[in-house]
Amino acid sequence: MSKLAAPLERVVHELTKLPGIGRKTAVRLALHLMRVPADEVDALARVLGELRGAIRACDECFNLSEHPRCPICSDGGRDAASVCVVEDPINVLAVERTGAYRGVYHVLGGALSPLRDVGPEQLRVRELLERIARSSVREVILATNPNVEGEATAVYVSRIVRPLGVRVTRLAQGLPAGSELEFTDDLTLRRAMENRREY
Amino acid sequence: MSKLAAPLERVVHELTKLPGIGRKTAVRLALHLMRVPADEVDALARVLGELRGAIRACDECFNLSEHPRCPICSDGGRDAASVCVVEDPINVLAVERTGAYRGVYHVLGGALSPLRDVGPEQLRVRELLERIARSSVREVILATNPNVEGEATAVYVSRIVRPLGVRVTRLAQGLPAGSELEFTDDLTLRRAMENRREY
Repeated sequence: MSKLAAPLERVVHELTKLPGIGRKTAVRLALHLMRVPADEVDALARVLGELRGAIRACDECFNLSEHPRCPICSDGGRDAASVCVVEDPINVLAVERTGAYRGVYHVLGGALSPLRDVGPEQLRVRELLERIARSSVREVILATNPNVEGEATAVYVSRIVRPLGVRVTRLAQGLPAGSELEFTDDLTLRRAMENRREY
Repeated sequence: MSKLAAPLERVVHELTKLPGIGRKTAVRLALHLMRVPADEVDALARVLGELRGAIRACDECFNLSEHPRCPICSDGGRDAASVCVVEDPINVLAVERTGAYRGVYHVLGGALSPLRDVGPEQLRVRELLERIARSSVREVILATNPNVEGEATAVYVSRIVRPLGVRVTRLAQGLPAGSELEFTDDLTLRRAMENRREY
């Protein structure tokens, strides 16, 4: 039997739906929210309540955006001829953090997965083709995850994009920085060997 | 430069105020909230918005409660003659989880701390005395934390409660279950020795 007051229990119940938050953490968070100034809790409630209404997909790249076009697509300094294809918005953030990319993105909205019933029509592949057809895209960089589903998606996208006459590349696979050969898994080491470069 | 849309950034900003949630986790949580059905996010926003208005201190024990009296104080099956004195509501939950206690509680609202300017008048000590004066309390169990501030608080409360003719006890200190002597800190081991029992 829980001894939490019902309004606290309701907060705990909703918090435990979040990834990585178990009941113990949720209780700690809920009790923390009882100790801070009430307007802090209200601010959190407010921004959460506004979130889903305020965020949409960018008309161009389908990244999460407040406006019809996201800040990256709106940025005149970005190279619109280079399109980096990723599975999810969180991957855009990952590539942006590197600071090594000045092109734009295309968010597929997932990866092909027969097991989870995700086919090409569930992803924004058609939108990518339309985008290439109407603008001057020169290179499509496949930045889907280097796992089975991401690879399958990369193969699929490359096959339908290549006939359009654009260069199709894929993020390099190999040894992670700072790793040791001794502890590298076989597949990673094999790919590092296959992708070896002149030195 | 952050590439998050402003409404997402606002959610991340509020989430990072929570204990144990850094920016990376907050971004992951915020993006998760963009993937789930919108009414799940709205439910979270709603229960958070209602939290502070719906929760108050129990008139009797000052535990967090939805009603003037908390479920424990309202429970006729609990022994009101035994009062377990704790620092915070989270400690009530900890004692309740043991299932070993059938009395009631008194939440002080903290521990004495000269450094943080917390004196007896900041704690609910007067309320404890009034409670003992008006009801048939026979035992006060001091369950403040076994650290410097909790000990100081226990000593203080015991000194002003004992003259009222009630039994005053303190949670036992000793070796934690499943521990090993070799890795037990000196103070814990010393207390375990001082508090040794007939076997």
